[in-house]
Amino acid sequence: MTHFDRIQKPTLVLNPTRVRRNIQRMADKARSAGVRFRPHFKTHQSAVIGEWFRPAGVTAITASSVDMALYFARNGWKDITIAFPVNWRQIESLHELAKSIHLGLLAESVETVEYLGSRLHAPADLWIKVDVGANRTGLDWDRPEEFIPVLRAAQKTGLRLKGLLTHAGHTYKSATPADVIQTYQESTQRVHSVRQYLEKEGFGPLEVTVGDTPGCTLSPDLGSVDEIRPGNFVFYDSTQLHLGTCKEKDIAVAVACPVVARHPEREEVVVYGGAIHLSVDRLSDQGRTIFGFVAQPDSNDGWGQLIPGAYTARLSQEHGVIHLPSSVLEKVRVGDLLFVIPAHSCLTVTALGEYLTLDGEIIPVGR
Amino acid sequence: MTHFDRIQKPTLVLNPTRVRRNIQRMADKARSAGVRFRPHFKTHQSAVIGEWFRPAGVTAITASSVDMALYFARNGWKDITIAFPVNWRQIESLHELAKSIHLGLLAESVETVEYLGSRLHAPADLWIKVDVGANRTGLDWDRPEEFIPVLRAAQKTGLRLKGLLTHAGHTYKSATPADVIQTYQESTQRVHSVRQYLEKEGFGPLEVTVGDTPGCTLSPDLGSVDEIRPGNFVFYDSTQLHLGTCKEKDIAVAVACPVVARHPEREEVVVYGGAIHLSVDRLSDQGRTIFGFVAQPDSNDGWGQLIPGAYTARLSQEHGVIHLPSSVLEKVRVGDLLFVIPAHSCLTVTALGEYLTLDGEIIPVGR
Repeated sequence: MTHFDRIQKPTLVLNPTRVRRNIQRMADKARSAGVRFRPHFKTHQSAVIGEWFRPAGVTAITASSVDMALYFARNGWKDITIAFPVNWRQIESLHELAKSIHLGLLAESVETVEYLGSRLHAPADLWIKVDVGANRTGLDWDRPEEFIPVLRAAQKTGLRLKGLLTHAGHTYKSATPADVIQTYQESTQRVHSVRQYLEKEGFGPLEVTVGDTPGCTLSPDLGSVDEIRPGNFVFYDSTQLHLGTCKEKDIAVAVACPVVARHPEREEVVVYGGAIHLSVDRLSDQGRTIFGFVAQPDSNDGWGQLIPGAYTARLSQEHGVIHLPSSVLEKVRVGDLLFVIPAHSCLTVTALGEYLTLDGEIIPVGR
Repeated sequence: MTHFDRIQKPTLVLNPTRVRRNIQRMADKARSAGVRFRPHFKTHQSAVIGEWFRPAGVTAITASSVDMALYFARNGWKDITIAFPVNWRQIESLHELAKSIHLGLLAESVETVEYLGSRLHAPADLWIKVDVGANRTGLDWDRPEEFIPVLRAAQKTGLRLKGLLTHAGHTYKSATPADVIQTYQESTQRVHSVRQYLEKEGFGPLEVTVGDTPGCTLSPDLGSVDEIRPGNFVFYDSTQLHLGTCKEKDIAVAVACPVVARHPEREEVVVYGGAIHLSVDRLSDQGRTIFGFVAQPDSNDGWGQLIPGAYTARLSQEHGVIHLPSSVLEKVRVGDLLFVIPAHSCLTVTALGEYLTLDGEIIPVGR
């Protein structure tokens, strides 16, 4: 526990064994299904951790921003899809990327396709975003005729029209694992129906790429897709555990937080670890809003089993207020560490900016 | 608008005129009330902006972490209170600070006071945290006898026992400005009652320091306190506006976000600007959860008046979904900028890490 003795501040602790196991499991699942695996690197955001995907045969990745794509391109990745609608204001960086790697771009409007056609003078793959019910962005799956002008515009450019991209983010709203599976399957069918419609209209062949960790983890059948792009599975988090996507022993990150005050009369302790460390993302568990489950240090695995009944109840900028059952609280002292499993590991990674592995190694996050 | 034409990514835009006016107004209020003004620098987190407080006579500040205190100490501030319970694990940094500046520390337990007594070998002020109802941390104001062992422990150390510190964070839960004022006044009375009890018991004289932007801004009478420590007033934000703490023209920061997709059929646009830029802090307005009000660019003030009926409705890692009334949406194009007034400016500052002023200057945030 010497590495943990040196922890002074909220610290993102990483269990590399679990990361490698999570990667291998998803890679194996994709391979068995005959589906390409293009993991989303927006969760770990780290060139070092990126290398841990290579033994699983990964050569193509997904990024959520132009900057993230530039970072991974600088770190040896030659095939990157940016799964975010093209931001016109970064056209120069996109052009640089398109010249140096195999770049995939995402669009959903004639304007953006035409903009790329006139401003991007290097080859790139073009994916059209389909909204399968997540209600974030993309063209509606149930109005497939609205894809036609966008595809026609694409044909007039030098872009390689690859196919349809979706993210069934509404799996996160599921009540049970069965609901996740149903949403995943419904979503893949919806995007597949758009593909069939468009191929009949003479466009194609079109590929389909999907990606969300709950669906890709839980669905026994990945469906009629060509590629999956999950990201969060590399670490999982309290939200995924609550959803039933993972088991406790799959969770690969936790934030070590120093205890600074005890409130036994209300079964709470205060830790140094607040909104700027964990993010204020949250989940709803048994009618309560919580910001993460909680564990104690463990000399073998970094952190032990989740403390039954313990949760992060409130956050302010630097403070976390943790509900701890009295039987645990009476043994916790000021100066001890508690481990908070983030509600949303991707945001916590961005907030903390580096990892401390169980072996004491510091791994930076890309900036 | 040339500076804005160059914006490529979510960018924290700063109106320095409003900042200076906000500072002067709060400094004047404290001076009129005969109360010391020790602004909390956790909102702006910037040495450059810190200098803008000096013309208002500010020489003493508040920080929320040891690192923030170290940063401002390096940048010429010689009197800093860290308004967060002492984190034992940073004792060496605290010792360095205590040797070099006039340092104020916060404790609420015998253990922490004794820890400081045995490990901090340089002078520091000691403040005892009082919980006046915010229910975050501190000793309960209505059990003043529980302060006595902590004060006795303090007397056995070399620490300078200064008095009582509180933060009435529950003003943020108020429904109206009148409620804010009532909570502020009740809070100052509560901490004052603790002071009176303890002075009668032979401790003292004890000072009282309070600090929350809603109360310090709205309460016409700052009450029987020696010092105020508001922080957010320097910028304000959507939460403060909604609470009635500030007017639109007082808000000094907004996040410029490029529009990347339009959804006229549901009166929404998608911007590049998500949870990792704005934070996922939120407010509740007319039964809706919103992540910030919205304005359009304005050539004079950076951003114009808030768009009636517009709000940031959903956030994911990089995406913001903004509700825009049709009359506005029809004039907004992909590639345009929209300005989101953060729900909580302090967290947005941490997330974005630098400012772009209306004059095109980049101001860094301390790290």
